[in-house]
Parts: sequence; C-alpha cells; structure tokens
Amino acid sequence: MVFASAPEWSDKLLRYEVDLGEEVGKRVLFSGIRKWYTPEELIGKNIPVVINLAPKKMGDEESAGMCIMADTDDGAILLFLPEDLKPGSVIR
Amino acid sequence: MVFASAPEWSDKLLRYEVDLGEEVGKRVLFSGIRKWYTPEELIGKNIPVVINLAPKKMGDEESAGMCIMADTDDGAILLFLPEDLKPGSVIR
Repeated sequence: MVFASAPEWSDKLLRYEVDLGEEVGKRVLFSGIRKWYTPEELIGKNIPVVINLAPKKMGDEESAGMCIMADTDDGAILLFLPEDLKPGSVIR
Repeated sequence: MVFASAPEWSDKLLRYEVDLGEEVGKRVLFSGIRKWYTPEELIGKNIPVVINLAPKKMGDEESAGMCIMADTDDGAILLFLPEDLKPGSVIR
C-alpha cells in the first residue's frame, strides 16, 4: 500500500491505494478493516487483492478491488506478502 | 504443513500433508515446487490452499488440492501465513 487513511464519513472503512505495477497502475480500494488495522500499520505493506470486479461506490469515490483476508476467531487478518515482492505480481 | 517429502519418482514435485482443521481434516497435496523449496523448510509453515478441486493422480496417490503462489521474476513463492493462524481458517 502506497497510502492509507480513515475516511471521516465512515467508522468501519479504510481507504487505501495499492500499486499494482506498470500494467494495471495504482488503484484506490476501500475495505471494512478499521476494527483491526490503522492506516499507519498498512502503509508500505504488500497485500493480495482481487481486481477483476466491478468497482463499488464508496462515499464520493469507487473501490476498485477487494482485499483477501483469513477468518479468525476474533475477526479477520490481512495476508501480508513479502515486502520485496514486485508490485503487480500475479497470485494463482 | 504437518509433513513434507520429496518423492523419489519425481524431480519436480514435493509431497506434503496439510492440516485443514476439524471439518476437512488432513489432506495430501503434491506441488511442483522442489526447485524453490526443500521439505525441511516447509514443515510447520502455514500456506493457503485451494481444495474445491477434483483430486489429481500423482504417482500412486492423489493430490487433494493446490497451493497458491505469487509469480516472481525467478519463479514463484509460496504465500506463508502467520504461524498462529488456526488450521482450516477460511480465506476469502
């Protein structure tokens, strides 16, 4: 994530930007993960996202993808990828 | 992974067993990852796997799922999950 913030108009969502490499570029995503993560701890981290979805309206913007998470007893955790993984690496 | 080994009849595959929790139980999988990983470095690690697939015949056994990997310039890397993640946690 190249940027992350907590939008004022929501108490659940974080807004963040991911760099998906040369071909796809940067995308803005919104996810309901504010209960578990602060913007500060996400910036610079790599996470897997799904991007072959229709954009979803969020406030005045659109979310252009979804993060992938693992369910836990307490909620959910993001799947952090190695920090040296190249932006836009395909997962399959 | 609760167990991993390099089958003698292949030079590409590793055979490994994953514990997918109470509901699914343990499964044997084969993946062509011997170029990048030794059995020793996989035992005890948690990885995401896809299990809603038809089993695939491998030697005298079947592979009951597939691991998920990220493509890199040099090949592919496994997506290691936190070691305290409960076996069988659903990823979505």
